[in-house]
Amino acid sequence: MEKKILLNERDIPRAWYNIQADLQTPLPPPLNPETGEPITPDMLSQIFPMNIIEQEASVERWIDIPDEIIEKLLIWRPTPLCRAYGLERHLGTPAKIYYKNEGVSPPGSHKPNTAVAQVYYNKISGTKRLTTETGAGQWGSALSFACNLFGLELKVYMVRVSYNQKPYRKIMMETWGGKCVPSPSPDTNTGKGFYEKNPEHPGSLGIAISEAIEDAVTSKDTKYSLGSVLNHVMLHQTVIGLEAEKQLASVNEYPDVVIGCAGGGSNFAGLSFPFIRDKIYGKNIKIIASEPTSCPTLTKGPYIYDFADTAKMTPLLPMHSIGHGFVPAPIHAGGLRYHGMSPIVSKLLIDGLIEARAYTQLETFSAGILFARTEGFIPAPETTHAIACVIEEAKRAKEEGKEKTILMNWSGHGIIDLPSYDAFLSGMLGDYVLPDEEIARLVKDLEKYPKPR
Amino acid sequence: MEKKILLNERDIPRAWYNIQADLQTPLPPPLNPETGEPITPDMLSQIFPMNIIEQEASVERWIDIPDEIIEKLLIWRPTPLCRAYGLERHLGTPAKIYYKNEGVSPPGSHKPNTAVAQVYYNKISGTKRLTTETGAGQWGSALSFACNLFGLELKVYMVRVSYNQKPYRKIMMETWGGKCVPSPSPDTNTGKGFYEKNPEHPGSLGIAISEAIEDAVTSKDTKYSLGSVLNHVMLHQTVIGLEAEKQLASVNEYPDVVIGCAGGGSNFAGLSFPFIRDKIYGKNIKIIASEPTSCPTLTKGPYIYDFADTAKMTPLLPMHSIGHGFVPAPIHAGGLRYHGMSPIVSKLLIDGLIEARAYTQLETFSAGILFARTEGFIPAPETTHAIACVIEEAKRAKEEGKEKTILMNWSGHGIIDLPSYDAFLSGMLGDYVLPDEEIARLVKDLEKYPKPR
Repeated sequence: MEKKILLNERDIPRAWYNIQADLQTPLPPPLNPETGEPITPDMLSQIFPMNIIEQEASVERWIDIPDEIIEKLLIWRPTPLCRAYGLERHLGTPAKIYYKNEGVSPPGSHKPNTAVAQVYYNKISGTKRLTTETGAGQWGSALSFACNLFGLELKVYMVRVSYNQKPYRKIMMETWGGKCVPSPSPDTNTGKGFYEKNPEHPGSLGIAISEAIEDAVTSKDTKYSLGSVLNHVMLHQTVIGLEAEKQLASVNEYPDVVIGCAGGGSNFAGLSFPFIRDKIYGKNIKIIASEPTSCPTLTKGPYIYDFADTAKMTPLLPMHSIGHGFVPAPIHAGGLRYHGMSPIVSKLLIDGLIEARAYTQLETFSAGILFARTEGFIPAPETTHAIACVIEEAKRAKEEGKEKTILMNWSGHGIIDLPSYDAFLSGMLGDYVLPDEEIARLVKDLEKYPKPR
Repeated sequence: MEKKILLNERDIPRAWYNIQADLQTPLPPPLNPETGEPITPDMLSQIFPMNIIEQEASVERWIDIPDEIIEKLLIWRPTPLCRAYGLERHLGTPAKIYYKNEGVSPPGSHKPNTAVAQVYYNKISGTKRLTTETGAGQWGSALSFACNLFGLELKVYMVRVSYNQKPYRKIMMETWGGKCVPSPSPDTNTGKGFYEKNPEHPGSLGIAISEAIEDAVTSKDTKYSLGSVLNHVMLHQTVIGLEAEKQLASVNEYPDVVIGCAGGGSNFAGLSFPFIRDKIYGKNIKIIASEPTSCPTLTKGPYIYDFADTAKMTPLLPMHSIGHGFVPAPIHAGGLRYHGMSPIVSKLLIDGLIEARAYTQLETFSAGILFARTEGFIPAPETTHAIACVIEEAKRAKEEGKEKTILMNWSGHGIIDLPSYDAFLSGMLGDYVLPDEEIARLVKDLEKYPKPR
């Protein structure tokens, strides 16, 4: 009875899996909001290097991982696949629960999987400095870690509510040499607009993205880097699922259910895409994305063309969205407060290949505490959304008296989020459910754009 | 070129190594301070269960690890042995540097190795509740984690200066269900004495130990648990070195130098004892304990009989000590501020089997930042003392143009200690060196006790 299924370094995946190769109809293209026409690669070249733009559009099924990236991934990868015997026993479920522990990376989450790749591609393209935004701070930390490894400068615009809630994140970024400011900041035109009206503006991922992009396009040798949503980010994260597949195979297992939490979609994509490929080719398998009721992008948002940021500086992306003007409730899962969703993940929902569920903040923290007390490791608030869904599925297995194998992405640890646990244990947290009317209001002005097909 | 040398779960050590079997002269016994006579097991039975008291005095070379303990250790063990290629490259050293990553445990340090063992032995002895003290909070967290796994209650007395410096530690303990109060507290007679004179008294490990012991001896079904210093703690930590030995052997390596930081001595002992055994039997190997100049127990403290606590509630232990009345400077390595040292580690220094070095706070944080920026993982302030010593040895290898293999214990991560890094990066930290005259003053009243032989 193995607790942790390890993979040797020589078995680390050598190529990323690109699900675009297996979609039955192509992904609708990003659109130029002014013309309604598909954007061209050169329109993106101000913010991304060309090698990343090529990956964004690629339909090659397998894309080789350069050795320079493998070398950095090996700092913490392959990550352990763990069997949650303690949680299973507590629930009295016949289900087998496996979790892929992405919390073992230096910044503590799955985010560096794409950070090291993006920084490498920027470096070989001549980029000297990167900008980005961060919500909970996981992405900013991961990019700071990666920039330090390859010797690039970094400036992170961090959503102010999270900057104040999670002061350790900024220190972590600075320990690796990155610079971090609260957003909206006075450092950009976009930020200044909000900042001057209210220096304590709580901020949003949408605003922070706008600031980071503005900085990138107006600064020398500077590009922008995004930690989720885009196709190349989903691609880089597939090492998670590819490793898990090998690890499960080594103990003669295959999952009946695959679960990940979803904010912009990257950790969910990383674990699930290799299994969705099997589903496309006929395998019977349930794939579930788990999100907060306060930001129910997949469960309630329409499939529309929307901007990726608040200031409408980005192209229009085809996605499930609750509108770029969304200002999230102050839930503690900062990484799940994004108004949109990865276009690929959005299309997979439309194509019926995945399903989505939403959980309240109290449900998810209860699940997180139960996990910590049965399995030991304290999960990030984002990760607790996946755990809540796992518990639901494991209880269902018990009711139905059915054996099944559940695989989840344990996307990160919650050590830096301990004040959120304190708030929960002290009874200070509330539930938030975004009302349908509010969503209708938020997406109303998007009717003028084309419908993605 | 492997970055991480893994060990399979089936290769986890099944017995602890007891160095008492290989000492050339027996360890001097603990003494009753009133009579000057060796204490008897029943005098300890108020605070420890008998199975632990037996381990404390055992001279059996190998002691089997019960399956129930193995099951819990497998939550995070075996831990990875990592090659510090990034640090080596930065230093331009011919030395090979390996670090044993004990930061992967749920509480983030080596401490749960003994916590799960002690809680297990207490549980099978009928103990329902444990008390303990904690400095930096690593031990309190580890014991809370372990008590939760076996269903015991816990109360932790945390040195107030650390309680205030590291608020996340208390939340971590509570997340696993433990109770944590700042010490000196009003909850015990010992604590009350200090607390009523000064409710903001910074506390010390010595005072906190006294509080925890008083609570244990005056409460029903309650015992006390100590996270370092004692023989059984050193014993439980030897899984670290036993694993490292196997991991190095798997790549045909054997260390020339073994390094660990030392507060009470447990992580140093855990890594080094199996190698010291080889040294006793003729192997040429250098073993170095690294400590702060602000608490130079091994480098400056005399080898004497001293109390383990401030209130003189414990037996007299034969150890290197700077006196139980020592009030440490507010350095950030809370786990290294203890006035005494493990009797076994102390004797190994007397026997010439190990050496000791001291480093200032600024030297160690510089080493910590360098490690984080070359290897990715952010070390605990305690661990940075070992890193400072590794860097010194690696630089010496470069000067001498000699290849050598250095093995260090990376005793824990510094995620919860990020404010200490912030203070360092902002230039707010100072150096502290304990003056010789102060040590002479602190140990003066110990002259009346026998000399350990």
